[in-house]
Order: sequence, then C-alpha cells, then structure tokens
Amino acid sequence: MFITFEGIDGSGKSTHAKMLCEELRRRGLEVVETKEPTPGRIGSFIRENIEHGSKERWMEVEALLFAADRFEHVKGLVEPSLKEGKIVVSDRYIHSSLAYQGGGGLELDWINTLNRFAPMPDLAILLDVNVETVFKRISGRRKTNFEERFYLEKVRELYLKFVEEGGLVKIDAERPLKEVHTEILLKVEKVLKTV
Amino acid sequence: MFITFEGIDGSGKSTHAKMLCEELRRRGLEVVETKEPTPGRIGSFIRENIEHGSKERWMEVEALLFAADRFEHVKGLVEPSLKEGKIVVSDRYIHSSLAYQGGGGLELDWINTLNRFAPMPDLAILLDVNVETVFKRISGRRKTNFEERFYLEKVRELYLKFVEEGGLVKIDAERPLKEVHTEILLKVEKVLKTV
Repeated sequence: MFITFEGIDGSGKSTHAKMLCEELRRRGLEVVETKEPTPGRIGSFIRENIEHGSKERWMEVEALLFAADRFEHVKGLVEPSLKEGKIVVSDRYIHSSLAYQGGGGLELDWINTLNRFAPMPDLAILLDVNVETVFKRISGRRKTNFEERFYLEKVRELYLKFVEEGGLVKIDAERPLKEVHTEILLKVEKVLKTV
Repeated sequence: MFITFEGIDGSGKSTHAKMLCEELRRRGLEVVETKEPTPGRIGSFIRENIEHGSKERWMEVEALLFAADRFEHVKGLVEPSLKEGKIVVSDRYIHSSLAYQGGGGLELDWINTLNRFAPMPDLAILLDVNVETVFKRISGRRKTNFEERFYLEKVRELYLKFVEEGGLVKIDAERPLKEVHTEILLKVEKVLKTV
C-alpha cells in the first residue's frame, strides 16, 4: 500500500506522516517512511539549487528535476518496498509537482507526461489549510511575502481541483492535531481493507 | 543562426566547433561558442553524477536532467544570443538526447516531449565516424569496453536515421581534419545565405 501526504508547507504533512507511520508500526505493519525531494543526489541538488537557490526559478526546470528525482525514488525505493509487501508513506509525491509547477503556469498534461513512470498512490491525502493559517504557522520559521502568498493560493486551488476530480482525498487540517490524525487513520484503514 | 555539432565521443565535435567559430570570427561575425552538458549548475551535476557517476544509469533520469540543463541553456544563453543577432555554435544539443537516451531504449516521442521548449537548430551537423575508429582515437584517453561499443553502435544508427529523415546533416569525419572543416564551412555558408 502506497500512501502520500500532500499540502502546502506548514499544513502538517511531516508531523502527520510520522504519526501515521508510528501508529502503523505499533500495529505490527512494516512501514517505509520517505519524502520528496528525496535525500538522494538529485533531491539534494533540488534543495540546494532550486528551493534555496538565488537564481531565477523556471517551472520547467523544476518539473524536470522533480521528475528525475522521483524516478530514482520510485525505482530505488517505492516500488521495491511495495513488492516486499511494505507500506510506503511519502511526504509529498506527484500531486506536489502538479500543484506547484502547475500553479506556476505549467500545463498539467506536460507534467503528467514527464511523470508517466510514477505509480499512482493507493491513498493520496491532502492536508488542507488556509494559506493565511500557514503563514501564521511558518512566520516564525522564515520570511514570507506577498508573491508567495499569491502563488500558494494557486497551489491550494489546484490541490482542491484534484480533490474534486478524485485521486486526492481532502482532510481539513485546520482542526486540532489529534482530530486530524484520527481522520487520517480512518481513511487509511478503509483503504487497507480494499488493497 | 543556430548551428549544432553532433556525433559520438571522439568524432571531432569540439575541434570542429572551435575551428568553425574561429573562421566565422575571422570573417567579422559575432559567434557564441557553447556546449551541452553546459558548464552551469545542472550541467556540472550531470558530469559529476551521471557521466562519471558510479550508480546505475537510468535513461529516464538522464533524459530529464539533460532536458533541464537544456532549458537553462536555451533560455539563458541560446535564445538571448540569437535575438542579439549572434551566431550560436553548440557542441551537442537535442539530437544527443534523442540518439543517446533513444539508443538506451527510451521512446523518441517522450524525449521530444520533454524537450518541447527547445528551438530546432538552423543547421545540425553529424560528424559521422565508425565506432571502431572512435575507439582507436579515444583508447589513449580512457578505458572502453564491449558494452560501450554495442551502445555506441546503436547511438550511431539513430544519428544516421535522423539524417535520413532530415534535420541532421551528415559529414564523413573519417577524412583528414582540413577536408572535414572545408565541408563544414560549405554547409554553413549555404545556410547562412538562406537565414
């Protein structure tokens, strides 16, 4: 079973991914906890040069690099782990590419074509929060600005569009941590029964 | 005017690109000499991690990274230089992706889709040599092996297929340097008149 967490920065993805993995392990399941960009060579390059880089950001370059990182992630970790019957939980996956580079103006079709090798998750969870809320949460961590807020609104809009179209399941992450965690578990249990 | 040199390693691309640039400059033309992978951040990553890397080679990863490097190359150097009326001469460009990753088994359509932003050269020159010849030429530079020879035969086959289909112009590069240079100049002059 392949589960992914999606949402804008500060929506609680890493916290909830960790909590879910701990709970599944407590139940005796074998879980692989992973994330994108990966800690691998291309993922590290992305973090150093793109996310914290100073050069002009080109959405095409980001989409291509994220897809390259994802290929190594899928072939090197996700698929082998799934084959061994493990549960894979990833903090971000293909919906991030679609929402972020799509939010930056790239056509979704092109992003999908770059990622044609990527297996779809059995459960993709969107931790949905208002951009306003997120800005309050992360304002202690780093500086934010108007352009970023505008961009993140577009990213969120796309995430919500994917929820409407199916393939992404929305959870209201404005609520207390425990409530959100409980709802995540319910969704996971439901899918675990059918996989 | 945008000119590219293609061919397998050891076919004389860099030598002839340099000779052509010098000749065009002697004639008073403004020339930008460039290459792929670029000396930029992604090109450097490719050289360190892919071409001289020790990990398993995945054609998809290579195709995606080369396309990302090409995007920065095109938007950052090629297109601005062409707009300023300069002649751009590149040692390798999109046909390398098609021949090398295609030779490695990737579908050409997918590679073309990744590179949909890349303007086609006005003149793309294939310096065609036998793989046997190239192996003799580069055996002093580094070690070669049977698998590489087999792979390069496929790469050459694809290059020759592109010549047949049009869009790539073949020059027999088994001949003496001067003869090859003269033929390159003739092709360039012909295209310069029509551009």
